[in-house]
Amino acid sequence: MAHNLQAVQRQLEKQVAATRFQQSKTIAIAKANAYGHSIEAAVRGFAAADGIGVIETEMLTRLRELDWHKELVLLEGFFEEADLEVLQATTATTAIHCQEQLDALQLLPEGANLKIMLKLNTGMNRLGFRPALLAQVLLQLERLKSQHKVAEVVMMMHFADADAPDRASVDHAWNEMRLVLRQFEVQLKQLGVVSLSVCNSAATLRYADELFLPNYQNIIRPGLCLYGASPMGNAEGQGALDFDLQPVMTLKAKIIAIQDVMANETVGYGSRFKATQKTRVAVVACGYADGYPRWAGALTPVVVNGKETHLVGRVSMDMMMINLNPVPDARVGDWVTLWGEGGPSIGRVTECAGVGSYETLCNLNQRVNKQII
Amino acid sequence: MAHNLQAVQRQLEKQVAATRFQQSKTIAIAKANAYGHSIEAAVRGFAAADGIGVIETEMLTRLRELDWHKELVLLEGFFEEADLEVLQATTATTAIHCQEQLDALQLLPEGANLKIMLKLNTGMNRLGFRPALLAQVLLQLERLKSQHKVAEVVMMMHFADADAPDRASVDHAWNEMRLVLRQFEVQLKQLGVVSLSVCNSAATLRYADELFLPNYQNIIRPGLCLYGASPMGNAEGQGALDFDLQPVMTLKAKIIAIQDVMANETVGYGSRFKATQKTRVAVVACGYADGYPRWAGALTPVVVNGKETHLVGRVSMDMMMINLNPVPDARVGDWVTLWGEGGPSIGRVTECAGVGSYETLCNLNQRVNKQII
Repeated sequence: MAHNLQAVQRQLEKQVAATRFQQSKTIAIAKANAYGHSIEAAVRGFAAADGIGVIETEMLTRLRELDWHKELVLLEGFFEEADLEVLQATTATTAIHCQEQLDALQLLPEGANLKIMLKLNTGMNRLGFRPALLAQVLLQLERLKSQHKVAEVVMMMHFADADAPDRASVDHAWNEMRLVLRQFEVQLKQLGVVSLSVCNSAATLRYADELFLPNYQNIIRPGLCLYGASPMGNAEGQGALDFDLQPVMTLKAKIIAIQDVMANETVGYGSRFKATQKTRVAVVACGYADGYPRWAGALTPVVVNGKETHLVGRVSMDMMMINLNPVPDARVGDWVTLWGEGGPSIGRVTECAGVGSYETLCNLNQRVNKQII
Repeated sequence: MAHNLQAVQRQLEKQVAATRFQQSKTIAIAKANAYGHSIEAAVRGFAAADGIGVIETEMLTRLRELDWHKELVLLEGFFEEADLEVLQATTATTAIHCQEQLDALQLLPEGANLKIMLKLNTGMNRLGFRPALLAQVLLQLERLKSQHKVAEVVMMMHFADADAPDRASVDHAWNEMRLVLRQFEVQLKQLGVVSLSVCNSAATLRYADELFLPNYQNIIRPGLCLYGASPMGNAEGQGALDFDLQPVMTLKAKIIAIQDVMANETVGYGSRFKATQKTRVAVVACGYADGYPRWAGALTPVVVNGKETHLVGRVSMDMMMINLNPVPDARVGDWVTLWGEGGPSIGRVTECAGVGSYETLCNLNQRVNKQII
């Protein structure tokens, strides 16, 4: 994760002017328990980042307990009024994306000096204020600031299609944002806005040169790419290797049994695999309840003792079966690499299952024994 | 869960003779944290069962801590020699499915009196001894028993296709088992084998009348059905309702924002949803990192304030968007039922996503706040 953070920084350095790069900030996104990698891993892996962003309020407290002293960002903002206390206790920055949240900010004590990221809806139509509402939002923020309930305000937006081949949607959203910045230049200056957060993983890797504005401190919010996957998948010239991103998670499980299956015998639920020849089959102690994709096809690769082989039959809840014919020396107790270092990439595995890397990383079950190395 | 356990019992009572029903035992399967429902829920919901079966060694200890005093079964058996101590400390029964485990049993102290379930491979070719190996396995067990390392031995098998329309595979496996029982009648008697565990959910619901042998105590191992789903899905006459199975898990999330989307505007990642008319869209605080199926289609049902509506756009990592036009009174903070009581069945949701109920239940993320009611 530390390597990938560096790789993203180098990518950025290549694209933007030196002064703008030096003034920029990086909030490493670690929501969903660091995309399934554990928040403890995030604290270590992102030590060089300026901040960590999450969406779970309780993670703010956890991160402070883990001695994360740099910035914290609550990316979807708070859900309950009680969360305001956590924000103050952890000195975290919170996104503000709707009027209900603005109303709740009134409940803050004077001197709370909360740091906020004001989220604009520039076309994704998920979270954020429409530009047409901004005038009165800024008025409210000015009042909150004069009461010292709110301190720093950062402007923020999010792209719906920064990973898409066609960049029309990115251009449209970015034009919206620039229009807003021009239109409200005076009010934003009065409010003391000096920072702008626009780039997610894909936008950082592809468009930072254009999306870094000279008059602002630009704050990037890389997520998936820090965990070794490219948001553009295997698109030509834009895969993980093209950006020097390294796989982070390695998933291994042990062989717990071996069966010699005769020709015409079947293996597993639904009898999906039928042996055409004598096949040595290993049962591996990992299944879909652990988070391995249930519908991974029979040719999904795994590596045993350095040799690549593949699944046979259907993935069970707690086990999967693999073909040991290419690895005749494998024994009960040997490790099988299901993805990551020394095994197939998670991208190859998820492709064989018709699912995505994002949800597969996040779905890794609690019962899987995790080690940070 | 208690209701479904009762429903399974009633189903059994209808099928088998009264004396055989009374002598039978039920091991409720609660692996994978009770299929995602939490082991605490299992302890309460399965209070009327004779035992609980899991695959995670650490769950045995946890179940004893939770004051589960009845039987415990470790369904895949132990993985490490160290697990033998846990088995003794928790007086759990362990499956024995391979020679490596038999060898490890030698390490037990005399007087350990471990209870085991001897797993036969009757054609699934996953775990278990082939019938041809049984003669020498029984010899080893006799020695272990004479040393009081092993006490009770139960015979066990597992079907690959008990949920399939075609029952040829069930017949084949069951014939294998009966052949073994006849062939080794004397040795099994000498070993004191009086119990037989054959039926998983599907076999319990469909074939118990034939699979309950008169000279044995029959032990069923229902799993999925206890959580309100039929292993036969919606097959004619064999759905959850046909067996009086009730949904157990209800998944709800709050509306955290509302957007008024104009005609021709798009919503969410990939701009997948394009409004054909003015559409009120709610952002709901649940996404695929919570375990909601990522590829749930745009017509996947949800219920808000008692009214059914549906998803719009792609499910994000931490959020999803829904159409509020049918529910104009909905507000930020209102609950949305994603599946379960008062909402669509998990079966309907997973069908819209092209996935299964099994893995969707298990994949519910740790960060989801769970309440047992």
